[in-house]
Amino acid sequence: MRSFLSSSSQLLSLAVLAISPVLAVWPVPETISTGTKVLWVDQSLHVTYNGQPLPWIYPCAPSTGAAKFSSKQIVQGAVARAAQYVLKDNFVPWMLYERNALADSEPSPHKDKKLLQRLVITQTGNDTVTTFKAKAGEVDESYKLAVTEEGVARITAVSSIGVIRALESFSQLFFKHSGGQIYSNLIPVQISDKPQYDHRGILFDAARSYFSVDSILKTIDALAWNKLNRMHLHISDAQSWPMEVPSLPLLAEKGAYSPNARYTPEDLALIQAHAVERGVQVFIEIDTPGHWGITYEAYPDVVAAWGATPWQDYCAEPPCGQLKLNHPAVDPFLDTLMDDVLARTAPYSAYHHTGGDEVNFNAFALDETVGTNDSTVIQPLLQEFFDKHHARVRKHGMTPLVWEEVVLHYNVTLGDDVVVHSWLGGESVGEITAKGHKVISSNYNYWYLDCGRGHWLNFANGAAFEQFFPFNDWCTPAKGWRLVYSYDPRAGLSEEQAKLVIGGEAAGWSEYIDEYNIDTILWPRASALGEVLWSGRIDSHTGQNRSQLDAAPRLAEFRERMVARGVGSAPVHMPFCTQGRNATACEYIPDA
Amino acid sequence: MRSFLSSSSQLLSLAVLAISPVLAVWPVPETISTGTKVLWVDQSLHVTYNGQPLPWIYPCAPSTGAAKFSSKQIVQGAVARAAQYVLKDNFVPWMLYERNALADSEPSPHKDKKLLQRLVITQTGNDTVTTFKAKAGEVDESYKLAVTEEGVARITAVSSIGVIRALESFSQLFFKHSGGQIYSNLIPVQISDKPQYDHRGILFDAARSYFSVDSILKTIDALAWNKLNRMHLHISDAQSWPMEVPSLPLLAEKGAYSPNARYTPEDLALIQAHAVERGVQVFIEIDTPGHWGITYEAYPDVVAAWGATPWQDYCAEPPCGQLKLNHPAVDPFLDTLMDDVLARTAPYSAYHHTGGDEVNFNAFALDETVGTNDSTVIQPLLQEFFDKHHARVRKHGMTPLVWEEVVLHYNVTLGDDVVVHSWLGGESVGEITAKGHKVISSNYNYWYLDCGRGHWLNFANGAAFEQFFPFNDWCTPAKGWRLVYSYDPRAGLSEEQAKLVIGGEAAGWSEYIDEYNIDTILWPRASALGEVLWSGRIDSHTGQNRSQLDAAPRLAEFRERMVARGVGSAPVHMPFCTQGRNATACEYIPDA
Repeated sequence: MRSFLSSSSQLLSLAVLAISPVLAVWPVPETISTGTKVLWVDQSLHVTYNGQPLPWIYPCAPSTGAAKFSSKQIVQGAVARAAQYVLKDNFVPWMLYERNALADSEPSPHKDKKLLQRLVITQTGNDTVTTFKAKAGEVDESYKLAVTEEGVARITAVSSIGVIRALESFSQLFFKHSGGQIYSNLIPVQISDKPQYDHRGILFDAARSYFSVDSILKTIDALAWNKLNRMHLHISDAQSWPMEVPSLPLLAEKGAYSPNARYTPEDLALIQAHAVERGVQVFIEIDTPGHWGITYEAYPDVVAAWGATPWQDYCAEPPCGQLKLNHPAVDPFLDTLMDDVLARTAPYSAYHHTGGDEVNFNAFALDETVGTNDSTVIQPLLQEFFDKHHARVRKHGMTPLVWEEVVLHYNVTLGDDVVVHSWLGGESVGEITAKGHKVISSNYNYWYLDCGRGHWLNFANGAAFEQFFPFNDWCTPAKGWRLVYSYDPRAGLSEEQAKLVIGGEAAGWSEYIDEYNIDTILWPRASALGEVLWSGRIDSHTGQNRSQLDAAPRLAEFRERMVARGVGSAPVHMPFCTQGRNATACEYIPDA
Repeated sequence: MRSFLSSSSQLLSLAVLAISPVLAVWPVPETISTGTKVLWVDQSLHVTYNGQPLPWIYPCAPSTGAAKFSSKQIVQGAVARAAQYVLKDNFVPWMLYERNALADSEPSPHKDKKLLQRLVITQTGNDTVTTFKAKAGEVDESYKLAVTEEGVARITAVSSIGVIRALESFSQLFFKHSGGQIYSNLIPVQISDKPQYDHRGILFDAARSYFSVDSILKTIDALAWNKLNRMHLHISDAQSWPMEVPSLPLLAEKGAYSPNARYTPEDLALIQAHAVERGVQVFIEIDTPGHWGITYEAYPDVVAAWGATPWQDYCAEPPCGQLKLNHPAVDPFLDTLMDDVLARTAPYSAYHHTGGDEVNFNAFALDETVGTNDSTVIQPLLQEFFDKHHARVRKHGMTPLVWEEVVLHYNVTLGDDVVVHSWLGGESVGEITAKGHKVISSNYNYWYLDCGRGHWLNFANGAAFEQFFPFNDWCTPAKGWRLVYSYDPRAGLSEEQAKLVIGGEAAGWSEYIDEYNIDTILWPRASALGEVLWSGRIDSHTGQNRSQLDAAPRLAEFRERMVARGVGSAPVHMPFCTQGRNATACEYIPDA
């Protein structure tokens, strides 16, 4: 029996790990022990939830978008998806067994075929409205899962979100036989699990490129498979404004790339409700006061420096544009905007991201209400701006998020409730937590997944070509999954500061990404982040950083699961490295 | 009328180009002029081929794999695919028109609707067996295409391959209307076109990762859309041997990753015939004597240094293995192998790639028939090896290809017929052509599409981790399409040497690639190579290198076409940069 229990001594755990890595389940649970007995599963599985029977096979209706969630509906949906993933969207793991050894490695479906007969789900706590739109720390995602040789699986969790997490782990115990039947060869199983970070997500940029609602829903599904629980939807930027705002209709009419490239209020509700049903919270970012351009076409009074050139003097990338800081039209505009949008997002989400990155002070020199790039003039205006803007967020019972420049570069004093989003790496996380703020990290050196694909600007022959050849982007090279996996956002912090790091996000800025390549951008790299944030960078059993050699076989297996479920993840390894789940076949051993 | 005719003065061409870039058709034809009149097209188009009617709508049967090709069947298939691409797999180009301007930019399908009535195809030469398995220079791919306002399209070409190229250009003139109808707004059209290079392809590594036959066929389709005409199928390597060889059955039985991950003789014939029908030649590489490992499991007598460690002393990547140089079993083994394989590939292909890269002399010290890494001992053995091996290729009427190390590093003297494949960049192409050899280039600094995604090896915590952090691969960073587009394999060569550069290949080594991410790896970057090799890096009208500002709008348009046809190409630009086809919106202007 493979063992990786916390009760084992560290030495034993390491020794056992070396000869047989823990199989299945990404991200790795806090404790997991698996055996080598076989159980088969089919459509006859009998499921109960708090003693009441639930259908195992159930026609999953799409989300209605309504912000009313019942625990039973949540659990029923999760059970039905588990059935889909176990019985249908599963894979024959030829690439995990030794070469040509599948036939000898699979269990025989013809003799002593023992079925998993019962799945007993017990929820020990009551869900509340907060469960479905929780701030960090407000929902208990822990669960226990046991599967016995006798054919009984038991899930226990405090909340329905914990049940969702348990069913995901449960679904990852099963494989498809080459004859089509479904089995687990890891029985008995004992799992006890809970996350190390509360905020585990991706930043999805639906402003620079347009993504269909279906492609966003599919990405939310994949987040849940990875036990990620946040989608930060960056829904406006200088280049486009795809979100319909009924009280300010010109925003999308003028700002969306096309009438077919808009998100209606119903689309947004559907996205958020679909996410809640999977234990994922979608919160939106309307970036202010920078990254704000195209709205000039709709409401020119509130925008300065629209299309200013040379753009590199006025913004981080074309086209330029910034909210004016002192124009009388801005406050009523933002009041209207926030009341409209937040009234609709607050039922599904505890957070609203107010942006604040890459504000360019030169652009304020073109703002007739400021007229200078002098920071002594601008700083108090920015203080006032964020004070008022965050009040708009709090008015709807939500918690504001800001990018770190607001506090670190513009010296704005923020409310204690404000969560700061760090991306610049270096000492940032330490500096923010030293100020007492909660922080989430998207350190670009590790967790910017769009980096390193070549520059997206055009360079004319001549000076521009010569200067920028070979046309690398600002954050080249690309971050491989091993680099993503190596980052510990709490590293080097005091215990008190570490507690303020509530999580992180992998970013997929979409200058070069749309729905046709998003899968290979996000996966398996956001899965690597998923394990860091769920399981922790440090293995609590060994006290050491987790090893690529432990992660690679499990991630390679999980990647095949994602592909089988319809998400086109890039590979983790060629089959030579995955066969036999032997990560040392492709290990680099330094010269002595 | 937009004009980019060679008859125009250079000054006029440039002036016209500046205000309205030539639309449609990737790679750009030698000369093209387009107008602004509209023609609609539907199922009623009347097609003739050399005066005989051909169906426009025709049920495309899959290739039979047989090596008998008739011109009429080739042309019928190309016509039917053009109908599919024009009428069904087409796209509404909202992302090419100005924002929200689609409705105003589309022609009205309700008034003065003029139909394209006739497509008149004239082939002026006779195809021969050589047409379908041509060496460089042996087939005429040129064509002329004219579409008149009166509703007649005329294609003239010497060969059926030229007709295929013309039909591809023809298909790219049409768009889908938001109401579903199909139109071209570029009428009248006059195109005269021919390629600048004869060998235009990709290197497809089906050894390190397994690709389904369907995924290979789809990639061949996309090659043809790009007027690429070669797929170099790297079909064996140290990690796996997926090709069934009936006379040496253990090769695939032991060497394939799985019984389901093999290419049967019928699979290979299907792949090659499917390609011929699209004007693409698939030739295979069986790399020798390096990159040769897993066959040890089948025929141990012929393999040295299998699995030798530390691998970095004996090969370029794990697992090590090299053909023995002096064992009596090797010649009969290779005689059998080549007779079996080449008898089956020769009907479809003029080339066989014999490999020769990254031979590690230390591995010969573990070869008991050599017993040393002394190059004075090894060089004459390598000379004898390639003399005999190339004779095996010539015996089947084929031309050998080798990697450049054979001639530049091992000092082997090659037959004049041998084409040398360069990948190391620098002065290589000059040195090879100085020796009088024909050359194809895959300069890794520009045309290795697998680079820059992070290292694929695992690094244990401790010394390996510290040494290799942040885990970049050897050829990082990734090569963006602009860098791919910037490489001119004939640059800096004498006219005589330049003539010896017959083309190039974009390489997709598959340590990190399989059929789920191959599309975003290859496209649009191999499209950029496609234009360099078809149209030339230098615009013959201006005498200057082609500009990214000219290429970007056309490539962005063509990318949408590839997506509509089912290949998930990565984007060229976010819509902000493509709308209005105005590449200068996303141009970098250096500070004065």
